[in-house]
Amino acid sequence: MKKEVILLDHGSGGKLSNDLVSALMLPVFDNTILSRLGDSATLDVGGTRLAFSTDSYVVDPIFFPGGNIGDLAVNGTVNDIAMSGATPLYLSVGLIIEEGFSVSDLETIVQSMGRAARTAGVSIVTGDTKVVNRGAADKIFINTSGIGLIPEGIHIEGGNARPGDRIILSGTMGDHGITILNQREGLSFDAPVQSDSAPLNHMVARMLAASRNIHVLRDPTRGGVGTILNEVALQSNVGIRIVESGLPVNSSVAGLCELLGLDPLYVANEGKLIAVVASEDAERVLSVVREDPFGLDACIIGEVVSAHPGRVVLETIIGGERIIDMPTGEKLPRIC
Amino acid sequence: MKKEVILLDHGSGGKLSNDLVSALMLPVFDNTILSRLGDSATLDVGGTRLAFSTDSYVVDPIFFPGGNIGDLAVNGTVNDIAMSGATPLYLSVGLIIEEGFSVSDLETIVQSMGRAARTAGVSIVTGDTKVVNRGAADKIFINTSGIGLIPEGIHIEGGNARPGDRIILSGTMGDHGITILNQREGLSFDAPVQSDSAPLNHMVARMLAASRNIHVLRDPTRGGVGTILNEVALQSNVGIRIVESGLPVNSSVAGLCELLGLDPLYVANEGKLIAVVASEDAERVLSVVREDPFGLDACIIGEVVSAHPGRVVLETIIGGERIIDMPTGEKLPRIC
Repeated sequence: MKKEVILLDHGSGGKLSNDLVSALMLPVFDNTILSRLGDSATLDVGGTRLAFSTDSYVVDPIFFPGGNIGDLAVNGTVNDIAMSGATPLYLSVGLIIEEGFSVSDLETIVQSMGRAARTAGVSIVTGDTKVVNRGAADKIFINTSGIGLIPEGIHIEGGNARPGDRIILSGTMGDHGITILNQREGLSFDAPVQSDSAPLNHMVARMLAASRNIHVLRDPTRGGVGTILNEVALQSNVGIRIVESGLPVNSSVAGLCELLGLDPLYVANEGKLIAVVASEDAERVLSVVREDPFGLDACIIGEVVSAHPGRVVLETIIGGERIIDMPTGEKLPRIC
Repeated sequence: MKKEVILLDHGSGGKLSNDLVSALMLPVFDNTILSRLGDSATLDVGGTRLAFSTDSYVVDPIFFPGGNIGDLAVNGTVNDIAMSGATPLYLSVGLIIEEGFSVSDLETIVQSMGRAARTAGVSIVTGDTKVVNRGAADKIFINTSGIGLIPEGIHIEGGNARPGDRIILSGTMGDHGITILNQREGLSFDAPVQSDSAPLNHMVARMLAASRNIHVLRDPTRGGVGTILNEVALQSNVGIRIVESGLPVNSSVAGLCELLGLDPLYVANEGKLIAVVASEDAERVLSVVREDPFGLDACIIGEVVSAHPGRVVLETIIGGERIIDMPTGEKLPRIC
């Protein structure tokens, strides 16, 4: 660790986040489960295979078009669990609330959490509430952790991508991140953008019913599609090629990204997944994703190659090539 | 909810905390597992019985005699899981760090977490790090969630206390809470007090090996022994009688409590348990608790009675009786 103090970018999901985990956490919490670094850990408990995941939500603003910190916290952990192919079952909720926070806002948030849990089909079974002094926290932070059951025969992991596999993205990029950014810092462009926060476990169930050749599932939250593809390329030691003309982006999001100098490839999503699927099953999996209400805009955005292992390359609209790096700077304020 | 804003006492573990959970959370997150309100939830996943628990740690100061926020966060969740009779196996860690926090302090905390996990025999298998803007959080908050395996035939719950049962307390009261309080707000009395933060799972394993008649296990953290006994009396619909002369308190803690006008019965512990045990097994269980390095000062502090259901009564040293209520005020600043 070269830096002597923690920077915002240590939490951004990019290079500094990875450095922090690799240099400071992995050697201390030394175990093979953690070091796989998926969206969730895969555990064997008494002969039952479980997915276990945790996430803290510190989004500002806490209310935004398309959702609030409450449903975001439920959907986010449901999705992390679903990305191992598991059926999410149970969630915990840890609230850290600033003294003076409005009880009516808390009610709204808790009710959103309840609705989101019912939609996903999970139960919130344990919780904890801490109240800190005024000024010691920014309104409310929510941690959710969750447990899912991994069906027999399912082994989905970031290291399983194989040359020839197709890469499916379940919808448009950057909606959540741009919505949050647009609400903050007095930007508030009058654009029809809203968060894509949504549970993806029912979509994953459809996909698993359609194919046993889904190799990798990831949800491109912090760091966006570009960062997650880099992680998959590194973990699987493969190259990834994506085609710019095939990347789905809502036009309002594209417009705001251009205004703000951001690349939608690095902007966070909260209701999208990336699937790496054997080529022979790719069209079938794509078609069931499109049957899901949250997968209408799904498409195949690229493929896995044996060339340039560990690297993601974009074929640009004008026919050139551009390397899509792991982002180093704080590309966006925190968005989850 | 009568109050329009959240008060510190909503997080104190006392009456307002209970009101918040009962009025706002339970109706929304409606399910029978949550409504049991134990230290952890008891789940059936694919035929395996699991304990699942979560806790956020927001203690100030983050370093204190006897530990720091890191080992506290590991021990606390290990203990919550152990209180269902489960063997704690896996933990998640969610860090919320304030921008500008010292990397060297973070290293110290992470190393303490690693040591505490090894001592307890659990693995930290999944995690999440968020960094918030300077001033948006007070240094560092840590959420830990955990999973344990409940052995066959073990059914330990707050509602299982029966008249005639004896109540064992595994050691002195109030050490953690008084230590934190003494460090804060410039008090710093030069007293030899230190936090009792410790993992209790090995002690629980000894107890379960010695008796199958352990009815209730709770760790008296926020709200202290007095609050937890009230919860047990309500959940089991029994009366509880404890004897003042038998209550273990370190003399320095007793002295500081007197100076500060606090009752050690309501001061938090982080390495103690209360066990409600069938009378015929009580002495045997007590003797194995005393064999554990964290149970040297264990004793029987009272018994369960059929009189005054839902109420905890203290027999005072001078031969009188005093009702030990669920605390209503913020008896202590947050301590966990």
